[in-house]
Amino acid sequence: MKGKGEASAAGHPMAHKAAADELSAGQKLEEDDQVVNPWTVTAKEGGKIDYDKLIDKFGCQRLDEKLIDRIQRLTGRTPHVFLRRGVFFAHRDLNEILDAYEKGEKFYLYTGRGPSSEALHLGHLVPFMFTKYLQDAFKVPLVIQLTDDEKCMWKNISVEESQRLARENAKDIIACGFDVTRTFIFSDFDYVGGEFYKNMVRIAKCVTYNKVVGIFGFSGEDHIGKISFPPVQAAPSFPNSFPHLFKDRKDLRCLIPCAIDQDPYFRMTRDVAPRLGHHKPALIESSFFPSLQGESGKMSASDPNSAIYVTDTRSSIKKKINKYAFSGGQDSIEKHRELGANLEVDIPFKYLCFFLDDDEELEDIRQKYGNGEMLTGEVKMKLTQVLTEIVERHRVARAAVTDEMVDAFMAVRPLPNMFD
Amino acid sequence: MKGKGEASAAGHPMAHKAAADELSAGQKLEEDDQVVNPWTVTAKEGGKIDYDKLIDKFGCQRLDEKLIDRIQRLTGRTPHVFLRRGVFFAHRDLNEILDAYEKGEKFYLYTGRGPSSEALHLGHLVPFMFTKYLQDAFKVPLVIQLTDDEKCMWKNISVEESQRLARENAKDIIACGFDVTRTFIFSDFDYVGGEFYKNMVRIAKCVTYNKVVGIFGFSGEDHIGKISFPPVQAAPSFPNSFPHLFKDRKDLRCLIPCAIDQDPYFRMTRDVAPRLGHHKPALIESSFFPSLQGESGKMSASDPNSAIYVTDTRSSIKKKINKYAFSGGQDSIEKHRELGANLEVDIPFKYLCFFLDDDEELEDIRQKYGNGEMLTGEVKMKLTQVLTEIVERHRVARAAVTDEMVDAFMAVRPLPNMFD
Repeated sequence: MKGKGEASAAGHPMAHKAAADELSAGQKLEEDDQVVNPWTVTAKEGGKIDYDKLIDKFGCQRLDEKLIDRIQRLTGRTPHVFLRRGVFFAHRDLNEILDAYEKGEKFYLYTGRGPSSEALHLGHLVPFMFTKYLQDAFKVPLVIQLTDDEKCMWKNISVEESQRLARENAKDIIACGFDVTRTFIFSDFDYVGGEFYKNMVRIAKCVTYNKVVGIFGFSGEDHIGKISFPPVQAAPSFPNSFPHLFKDRKDLRCLIPCAIDQDPYFRMTRDVAPRLGHHKPALIESSFFPSLQGESGKMSASDPNSAIYVTDTRSSIKKKINKYAFSGGQDSIEKHRELGANLEVDIPFKYLCFFLDDDEELEDIRQKYGNGEMLTGEVKMKLTQVLTEIVERHRVARAAVTDEMVDAFMAVRPLPNMFD
Repeated sequence: MKGKGEASAAGHPMAHKAAADELSAGQKLEEDDQVVNPWTVTAKEGGKIDYDKLIDKFGCQRLDEKLIDRIQRLTGRTPHVFLRRGVFFAHRDLNEILDAYEKGEKFYLYTGRGPSSEALHLGHLVPFMFTKYLQDAFKVPLVIQLTDDEKCMWKNISVEESQRLARENAKDIIACGFDVTRTFIFSDFDYVGGEFYKNMVRIAKCVTYNKVVGIFGFSGEDHIGKISFPPVQAAPSFPNSFPHLFKDRKDLRCLIPCAIDQDPYFRMTRDVAPRLGHHKPALIESSFFPSLQGESGKMSASDPNSAIYVTDTRSSIKKKINKYAFSGGQDSIEKHRELGANLEVDIPFKYLCFFLDDDEELEDIRQKYGNGEMLTGEVKMKLTQVLTEIVERHRVARAAVTDEMVDAFMAVRPLPNMFD
């Protein structure tokens, strides 16, 4: 997985940044329409991603209240803020996972990251924060794939640099608080081989070139590394790719938390799964994390001001939010008091929806900012405080991650109590 | 590598058998022309493979007397019968390998087999017999790739069956007499990963889909396993794919003995090599081993009578040769005494050219059979004697190959004295 994104219209947690010149010929943007795939996320001209349309197009299901209530009931925990606020908004077969879980059947979690950048931004953390919640709530094992091979091929960085970034990113991931007794982090360059490679071959046999062109939009001028890659991302969906964890089990179900742009990989995987005697992996899919400049704004990957990074200082966070966060407030205080902020486009409020855990406080802000009682400056101050806390906490946690801890998470080893 | 052949017009040592229904859409036979690629070897209608044309088309060089003399001079040995008789007839950069060798620089050998059949026939042994000679003559290390992944994908056999066949075939290969202190045999399913996988990715990055279509004739309906495979066969051409043998060396040259149908893989590899800082692998390429029914005859892979297998009994060998070996002798004894045999099409004589080591005796047969002094029956009797000896010797040698020996050859281990 894979791709991460400081991406296009929407900087989002699990999709590749795609500069225009990185688009392959087969990925021509459909004019006047949105494009969402693992390498490109582009909204309709000047607009926002239409997630309802995406659900229809991809054929996944909406994650509704009923399902969230069921998760609460089964786990005995308040659903994660990303569930309550609709950040994770779509799914595939989540009901089946919960049915099985209710009967006492466990599953495993699979997520990942394409290590393309030195420092992660907040959007990158979204799937990991959520995956940690799922791991804690369901008490299940987790595999995290670092697709250094993919990044080496798509970004044209060297094998060595890609491996270095994978290890750096692993530290940030570990800093999210994963349980080492239930978590296996692996880099493709380290781990591909053996049973994992056998599954890659089994998967590749089931997928024609025309099929991957249809799913991913590759062109004839794309290198064959790209065409070879989808089975690498598919393989972790099958438990016997991890014999040190699951032996040769085929019956174990897999749940994949990811951003919805990764759906194409798993549509392919789900298509193949029954032919190989596996359950189709279930998915729980997030929307994209917006850039500071707004959901419809153009975002440059090379512009550090378009996102808050986990390495940003307190003053830099404050400055970025005050200077760059797109405001839905009105032009003048008078007008603002009269009309209130447009919360549909207001980035400080949107970011608070992601990261302010207190439902009542958020509701209060929604009301007061929406009716003009609160000013943008006040909301930005609140956001600065919330994000500074998160970034500070992450910084401290990451500084405590030693090389030995990375080795421990990445060791190919059994996890004897992973289901307890 | 790969393919082996009980193939089409010519059963040959290192190319896939290709039944007509196995041809991919992109491999439509050009009417009235020969097709030679790793999966199909078909001569012009009713004719024989035109090797001169092949050399021109592929852009390799003829292996001439001068080069054979040079090999003799450098190794202090009589050149192998396959060199003296022109079985290995083409090359790429063999001169450069010899230049370097003359200056005291060593190289390594790389050959392989796609384990698609339980029992090998004599044609399958040709590259291994020759490779053993090269190893003995130059005192160099050798890697032998068993492409069980490829066979699993092309033949649609299971991973497990493909691995079983790889191990069975390894026994036949070991029985050819390789030196365990200089030889590493590996199965792709076992060995792909780590540095080898890194080279696969590096290679894949350099080759577009259009390029592999041009080289191999894949079509959009081919599965992506096929498109992913060329880098797997290319990777052993680079020494750092074997860190346990060559560490991270990039300067070590590689010489690949193979049948000429494998040339497309290594054309691709040679194209990529300089971009990755490696020498282009050198090649020494053989013609195809003819089927018993003759070089222009149609040969069915499922017909055990089209080849002599290493598992054939003495009586079966005798019967096959007498009954099926296509004779260039005349219809009646009188006519034969008058005109002599047509040695251009006579299979018993051709087989003797491969396997009768005694140059004088072969020359004597050429003369006497060619002028009618000898009858087909006498030549067939000689061939029966020669092949029975070879098959008997192989049978005894193979019976002595224990599972422990297979493990020893396939262990990922350093070979400390491999260049001595």
